[in-house]
Amino acid sequence: MHSNIHTFIGCDCAFDDAQIVIFGAPFDSTTSFRPGTRFAADYIRMDSFGLETYSPYLDKDLSDYHLTDIGNLDLPFGNAAKSLELIEETATEILKADKIPFLIGGEHLVSLGTIRAAYKKHPNLKLIHFDAHTDLREDYMGEPLSHAAVIRRAWDFMGDGNISQFCIRSGEKAEFEWAKAHTHLEKFSYETLASVVESIEEGTPVYVTIDLDVFDPSIFSGTGTPEPGGIFFGDMIKILKTLSPLNIIGADVVELSPHYDQTGVSTATACKVIREFMLTIL
Amino acid sequence: MHSNIHTFIGCDCAFDDAQIVIFGAPFDSTTSFRPGTRFAADYIRMDSFGLETYSPYLDKDLSDYHLTDIGNLDLPFGNAAKSLELIEETATEILKADKIPFLIGGEHLVSLGTIRAAYKKHPNLKLIHFDAHTDLREDYMGEPLSHAAVIRRAWDFMGDGNISQFCIRSGEKAEFEWAKAHTHLEKFSYETLASVVESIEEGTPVYVTIDLDVFDPSIFSGTGTPEPGGIFFGDMIKILKTLSPLNIIGADVVELSPHYDQTGVSTATACKVIREFMLTIL
Amino acid sequence: MHSNIHTFIGCDCAFDDAQIVIFGAPFDSTTSFRPGTRFAADYIRMDSFGLETYSPYLDKDLSDYHLTDIGNLDLPFGNAAKSLELIEETATEILKADKIPFLIGGEHLVSLGTIRAAYKKHPNLKLIHFDAHTDLREDYMGEPLSHAAVIRRAWDFMGDGNISQFCIRSGEKAEFEWAKAHTHLEKFSYETLASVVESIEEGTPVYVTIDLDVFDPSIFSGTGTPEPGGIFFGDMIKILKTLSPLNIIGADVVELSPHYDQTGVSTATACKVIREFMLTIL
Amino acid sequence: MHSNIHTFIGCDCAFDDAQIVIFGAPFDSTTSFRPGTRFAADYIRMDSFGLETYSPYLDKDLSDYHLTDIGNLDLPFGNAAKSLELIEETATEILKADKIPFLIGGEHLVSLGTIRAAYKKHPNLKLIHFDAHTDLREDYMGEPLSHAAVIRRAWDFMGDGNISQFCIRSGEKAEFEWAKAHTHLEKFSYETLASVVESIEEGTPVYVTIDLDVFDPSIFSGTGTPEPGGIFFGDMIKILKTLSPLNIIGADVVELSPHYDQTGVSTATACKVIREFMLTIL
Amino acid sequence: MHSNIHTFIGCDCAFDDAQIVIFGAPFDSTTSFRPGTRFAADYIRMDSFGLETYSPYLDKDLSDYHLTDIGNLDLPFGNAAKSLELIEETATEILKADKIPFLIGGEHLVSLGTIRAAYKKHPNLKLIHFDAHTDLREDYMGEPLSHAAVIRRAWDFMGDGNISQFCIRSGEKAEFEWAKAHTHLEKFSYETLASVVESIEEGTPVYVTIDLDVFDPSIFSGTGTPEPGGIFFGDMIKILKTLSPLNIIGADVVELSPHYDQTGVSTATACKVIREFMLTIL
Amino acid sequence: MHSNIHTFIGCDCAFDDAQIVIFGAPFDSTTSFRPGTRFAADYIRMDSFGLETYSPYLDKDLSDYHLTDIGNLDLPFGNAAKSLELIEETATEILKADKIPFLIGGEHLVSLGTIRAAYKKHPNLKLIHFDAHTDLREDYMGEPLSHAAVIRRAWDFMGDGNISQFCIRSGEKAEFEWAKAHTHLEKFSYETLASVVESIEEGTPVYVTIDLDVFDPSIFSGTGTPEPGGIFFGDMIKILKTLSPLNIIGADVVELSPHYDQTGVSTATACKVIREFMLTIL
Repeated sequence: MHSNIHTFIGCDCAFDDAQIVIFGAPFDSTTSFRPGTRFAADYIRMDSFGLETYSPYLDKDLSDYHLTDIGNLDLPFGNAAKSLELIEETATEILKADKIPFLIGGEHLVSLGTIRAAYKKHPNLKLIHFDAHTDLREDYMGEPLSHAAVIRRAWDFMGDGNISQFCIRSGEKAEFEWAKAHTHLEKFSYETLASVVESIEEGTPVYVTIDLDVFDPSIFSGTGTPEPGGIFFGDMIKILKTLSPLNIIGADVVELSPHYDQTGVSTATACKVIREFMLTIL
Repeated sequence: MHSNIHTFIGCDCAFDDAQIVIFGAPFDSTTSFRPGTRFAADYIRMDSFGLETYSPYLDKDLSDYHLTDIGNLDLPFGNAAKSLELIEETATEILKADKIPFLIGGEHLVSLGTIRAAYKKHPNLKLIHFDAHTDLREDYMGEPLSHAAVIRRAWDFMGDGNISQFCIRSGEKAEFEWAKAHTHLEKFSYETLASVVESIEEGTPVYVTIDLDVFDPSIFSGTGTPEPGGIFFGDMIKILKTLSPLNIIGADVVELSPHYDQTGVSTATACKVIREFMLTIL
Repeated sequence: MHSNIHTFIGCDCAFDDAQIVIFGAPFDSTTSFRPGTRFAADYIRMDSFGLETYSPYLDKDLSDYHLTDIGNLDLPFGNAAKSLELIEETATEILKADKIPFLIGGEHLVSLGTIRAAYKKHPNLKLIHFDAHTDLREDYMGEPLSHAAVIRRAWDFMGDGNISQFCIRSGEKAEFEWAKAHTHLEKFSYETLASVVESIEEGTPVYVTIDLDVFDPSIFSGTGTPEPGGIFFGDMIKILKTLSPLNIIGADVVELSPHYDQTGVSTATACKVIREFMLTIL
Repeated sequence: MHSNIHTFIGCDCAFDDAQIVIFGAPFDSTTSFRPGTRFAADYIRMDSFGLETYSPYLDKDLSDYHLTDIGNLDLPFGNAAKSLELIEETATEILKADKIPFLIGGEHLVSLGTIRAAYKKHPNLKLIHFDAHTDLREDYMGEPLSHAAVIRRAWDFMGDGNISQFCIRSGEKAEFEWAKAHTHLEKFSYETLASVVESIEEGTPVYVTIDLDVFDPSIFSGTGTPEPGGIFFGDMIKILKTLSPLNIIGADVVELSPHYDQTGVSTATACKVIREFMLTIL
Repeated sequence: MHSNIHTFIGCDCAFDDAQIVIFGAPFDSTTSFRPGTRFAADYIRMDSFGLETYSPYLDKDLSDYHLTDIGNLDLPFGNAAKSLELIEETATEILKADKIPFLIGGEHLVSLGTIRAAYKKHPNLKLIHFDAHTDLREDYMGEPLSHAAVIRRAWDFMGDGNISQFCIRSGEKAEFEWAKAHTHLEKFSYETLASVVESIEEGTPVYVTIDLDVFDPSIFSGTGTPEPGGIFFGDMIKILKTLSPLNIIGADVVELSPHYDQTGVSTATACKVIREFMLTIL
Repeated sequence: MHSNIHTFIGCDCAFDDAQIVIFGAPFDSTTSFRPGTRFAADYIRMDSFGLETYSPYLDKDLSDYHLTDIGNLDLPFGNAAKSLELIEETATEILKADKIPFLIGGEHLVSLGTIRAAYKKHPNLKLIHFDAHTDLREDYMGEPLSHAAVIRRAWDFMGDGNISQFCIRSGEKAEFEWAKAHTHLEKFSYETLASVVESIEEGTPVYVTIDLDVFDPSIFSGTGTPEPGGIFFGDMIKILKTLSPLNIIGADVVELSPHYDQTGVSTATACKVIREFMLTIL
């Protein structure tokens, strides 16, 4: 008789064998509207039980690969700087072992930890970002480490020309203005995604961050700030297929807030996105 | 230290400066299935906190205009006639000051108060109506003042040729038959909207009433009678863009029932519709 | 003063006069994820009150036909074999009277009872199946009578070439492989439906089974295993129009789980599907 | 095969045989805070399935008596006067047949219909009232027929000395003052109930009305205006035992609002109160 | 980096060191009203995070003891006999290692597996049972292995004089009658518990089963059949203190149904009961 | 026509006339389990509409006094130190005007701002604390400004002998140990409250802080960490009556988390506690 192992859909291979290493970052202290993303990774693991390992979209099966889920980090509520350090440390260790870190948030700020780790290893890193929100504020009520500023913080070190943003439908006027000079930002849709993907030289390391509020809240109510006008699940499948030629060396899926997912549909959607996303990377 | 002002997204300019005057009508006594629209205006004000003032759809910002929200009227439950008089009085006063009344329901019957006020000032008024339901009953269980008869009551004084209805997908057979002779009624969609808008002479005063159950209940569960088969948020943006050449002199958004909006998505959608709608009018 | 008759939308004609006979099968013992479809028929009857009898889609009215709702069967929890026998008996009796049985589940396994009855009367029966899931397992954890195996069980007696499946988006790899040899299975969509319908010789008896999880969970959260990527209500209208030339001699609508329908939208959708489906058959 | 009979816990004997006749009054148009009691009788019938017919409190079994449930009246929303007439008619007919009318609300105003019928037959009627609220307003925003005035309206014809009120914990100051001269009103508790019961001459006809918000909202959230500080289920059992010597000739249980009973506990409590209350009367 | 261990409140010592071994039995196929107890153990583990290890009631701390949580068994839905065998096997193994099995249900039927294992090792076993329901049916709709018959099934081998039942407030008349000859059954309360405990000879092996619906549904809505009139948390503390002199060699806590626990209060209560119950045993 | 004033139950007198000044502190960044108290003050104002101004418990009416509600402070999420400064500033200004600050949280940490302001004005301040939790941690995961440490932080400047804690039922062992030397802490109940009140010299300034999780979660589910075993509403009335002789110069009510109050009962309870508490102070 042994201890109870609890993972996303049975991803419990040994760390050394893993191609992808999943971990959770239960942090939501800078959330400005409805908090609660801290619970996301736990609910995703629990409800992944309702999901098959096989994808009829990709005709691939998770059980044919090696993945492991190392659980949640222990993060100090209210201390964003410290939490980001802990996330960065873990991602660095995974990258050092030549594995792909796959982070489950938490609020969007947590992505900054993995992106920093990825950038340190790969200074030629490209960032592809799907979201309802620009996340380009200089700061939020004086605080530079905010979920509403996470892509701006990544830009601080990645600089112009390396960040592409899709499906953005909310933000302050100043953020949209700023983006014109510094990132590739497509409002509402992802029509330019294919050309962005083509423009990235083969083999270039790419980090992909998916804020789940990119989905329309009809299919994804369980998030801090629901924004009508988002994409549907079929769009996500198309996006992932478009991303598949890339060399994705790190990824995250953030902003599920399970207590606003009364029906379980958002969590089911998050689970399926994670399955399809990991099968796309593999 | 001063009293607590509570408005839609900070619309708190002085009445005299306002271009648009928002007010709420918490009345739902004739609702036939699930009541509760009386709570809509309060929830909309509260959750408008999660919304930016800037619209990336229109590239316009509410903070560049003057609007005020004068709160809710005090309406007697169960007395439809009296409630409509009180709504009409307020709308009349706003119109007299050459401002645009913007009513937040309540059930759809409340629109009759503002439409009557608008018609009194503008006898050449046109009415444009978005809804899941025909709202053309002669009466509902003997009662002529009913949410299910509101457009029929407007027709009583506006007459043939002045009312256009879009996206209608529910009603009794007799209502659809009646409409053939008396209103322009497009079932399910809004393909004829552009030609209706074009047919209205420039400058003609127009009143627009949006029953939020025009939306598909996937994005808008929080309403009395959910009717699958409705429009999505992207459709609403197209509708508003089509309406923008018109001289809209009064408007309303009705039928949010917040206690059936467990996820908050309907309220978020209502907030965004109101922002986009007001920016369209301005 | 008489007893309280409780039916779907007033379908209470005498049995002998009925064209369609509605009955409920409150059984969900083999559900693998979220149980509760046992409550579906009761909620559907209750909320059908919010629905008109007239369909603007078909311009037909239920009140122009004769239908009856004979209520729910009394089924033993946990005993699938016995429950199926009872369902089969009732369907057989309805078919014997040359009426159309219309079954409201319950989990999908209940369809097997009506399909068996229909096949016994019509050995040249064709089966048309709409679902998110293949339902083609040989067994589920050793149990051949499972919701996840119901179409496989129908195949056991119907054999190759008689079963068509549409909109399927979830299952094990082995099920999709098996289907290639034994059923017509279209993944994700229903583009081949028209040609399948055309290929069925006029007058051939057809049974249609609709697992409501064929819908996208944005519009239909109230089901055991929500699967993003499903169809919308407009698709269902198109599907029903495509089916209308067929000689449908039996039908069911299954897998509504009302306690996961916090907003009532799934139940409203189920009600409307049943109205449109019955008007299509009539 | 016969039509679907839907009753409280199987109470479906023939009207002529019935000792108690249950009926529902789905009316809530004068509700001042959270509406929705219109749905109560339907939910009570549906969830009564979870209840045994046997009471271990009284060691009596409903199946040993004759009861019938004749369903809901068809009442016009928004028309209180007409609705009360229809309720009064039904109660009168039941009383005429020397049976006990047992009304399930709806809002508290519906009781007035049955009380009027009972008073017409029994001018020496006594009224015993359990509630959180005084319900003694002269009118509510000008409306004399209001849930908040129902006991005052009964007093209009019953006069001083015939009405006893228990467990009252909310109301306007003026109502409590008025009660001192006109009713027996015990605040918060029911300590004087036994002496009131004793003071009623044997055989005197008594009507008992239970507003379910008399319960603490911990056990009964599903009501329009939850008022902490109420009674618990054990108190209700004591109350019913105290009432058992009386000659109860009519009764009602009102103010369950099922859509505020997310857990089903209020409905389960209402069901059990009705079972125990009817067994007390029998 | 290691796999993710998921346990009740950090109970993750090595099996060999454990005094108590926790395991979950996700089975609910015979539930007659609202199913869903299959999810209980997962939610209990997840929400145990909100709980301290220290009990101010007992002034004892879980972290001073050795416990392990070995996770959930993999049980076949719909097959009660097989599920019970698997539970019995696990409990037998734990007992063989001279540890205390602590089972988290699942519906009440799962207790039968552990009780059988305990009885095989200790033929002089006593059973103490807390519940709202008698659970003494001979069978339920013909099925002897039912949640409503679990104590009767234990009696089948334990016989008269060994079973004590407390707080029972629901059941069929025949069950209460049967109990008079075969078990000690106290209705509604636990006043005789102390004398029952005293009557058990020191050191006698005792199995304690707590059906959480023994609680009043005001504090415990999250269960299949809520029964008003139950005990409160303070009563449970008193009960556990009364049990503390006993030699408890096996125990279970069953019937939490998390999807009916919208507020999380039932799960929090279950967590605290488990903490206090285990500290009582230790 | 004027702006929309939104207050607790109509408390909108001019600041200069006010005896009590209500304000809200929407801050919850250090919450360790379920966040969301940031929404409390808004929901309390909205639902206070369902409450009368008259208390039958105290036979006093809020409308006979002068109170004002100045709305919510604008606090930076994630910055506890800055938020506390802003709260302290506001409370200081209110105290300087010889009025009573009445703070609505937010998480419990916000109380520290008002207590600091009160202590600065009244160095002989006494603190009376009602809570489920000790709140006496030295720090929480390294952070001294935490909801779990708020009373310890007050002790830092108030010192031994000035703090009394009641109804405490949860905490770490070390906190209970620490309390023995530094505060008066009564576990579970408030039996010593009367003697504590008596021991306070007449006229001594007293600050009272009520963490609403002191209530049993049966009546108060809407809080971050529900702890069964709390007090009921009747206890709160007794507590307030016991407090009435004191010279209360500041007060707060904290830890309502409305999104975990699905039924509205917690918010209704909070509203009534605030009404009774303010009438006790006046």
